[in-house]
Amino acid sequence: MQSVQNGGTAKYKTIWMDIKMVGNYWNIPINPPKDFDKTFLEKPTRNPQLFLTALTVHCKEFLCPVSREFWHRTWSLDEPFYGWEDIKKICAKLNIPRAEELISASGTDEIKSLLKQRTNEALAQNACGVPWLVLQREGHENVYIWGSDRLPMICELLGKPFRGPLLEQSKL
Amino acid sequence: MQSVQNGGTAKYKTIWMDIKMVGNYWNIPINPPKDFDKTFLEKPTRNPQLFLTALTVHCKEFLCPVSREFWHRTWSLDEPFYGWEDIKKICAKLNIPRAEELISASGTDEIKSLLKQRTNEALAQNACGVPWLVLQREGHENVYIWGSDRLPMICELLGKPFRGPLLEQSKL
Repeated sequence: MQSVQNGGTAKYKTIWMDIKMVGNYWNIPINPPKDFDKTFLEKPTRNPQLFLTALTVHCKEFLCPVSREFWHRTWSLDEPFYGWEDIKKICAKLNIPRAEELISASGTDEIKSLLKQRTNEALAQNACGVPWLVLQREGHENVYIWGSDRLPMICELLGKPFRGPLLEQSKL
Repeated sequence: MQSVQNGGTAKYKTIWMDIKMVGNYWNIPINPPKDFDKTFLEKPTRNPQLFLTALTVHCKEFLCPVSREFWHRTWSLDEPFYGWEDIKKICAKLNIPRAEELISASGTDEIKSLLKQRTNEALAQNACGVPWLVLQREGHENVYIWGSDRLPMICELLGKPFRGPLLEQSKL
């Protein structure tokens, strides 16, 4: 497979152009990894997944900040995030208390089996990409949604207006 | 490849669920073809493409209605559209004048080479799916866009608000 930036197929080129356009729309600066394949496709993401799972159990308030940091390192800083050393740097940056304990917890059978269980749940829902979203509403069946570009539909299902990016705010 | 409806991979199932959700959002009733593969993947679409190309040259005002009719037969009526007999039925339904002449024109070298030229243009733009949209604005480079789900971004690029489907109207 060829990298997104260095040539590749028409579909790769188009997806790449699309990512930039969507980034501009949401006002999110995207500075892609220099080598997409090496960063994304050839690296194991098990450590970050184990760490995020440990956070859901032991330190939920950092689940979102750490997820954002993984995103930021990949799509903005072009820095690795899959090794424990990378994860330690993130913990230091975010001042996560008792980071060493959380990292140890990530390797326990409890967390490993919880990650496996959640992976199987996602597979059972036919998850096939990210973001994978589950919309839960009282009195309705769950709706399973693939893709951030489905936000207008999600707003509609929730009876809320879709206002797009926070352009007004950033223009002030 | 397995059909969307009859099992298939997780990705197929998810795409199918997504098509229904998007159809609901836009208030477009989708009644999919019973056999997606046979209708879409195993049938040549050269005749419809030649006919649409002939319309762009000889009868442009029917380009949009005929395109809609092709869509309607596929996604709502589950009727074929790829044979000349199907195209004749569409012409009759839409009262297209001199339909026989248009069908003859579709087979001329002029139209065949025009379709080839436009296909090559699309390939040069890295088109890899439908709808494939080219946004042209004075003083800007063209933007090439794949997918109806990019309408919010298109509105943004045009400086227009994205209002979503015509729900207010249909609720009246």
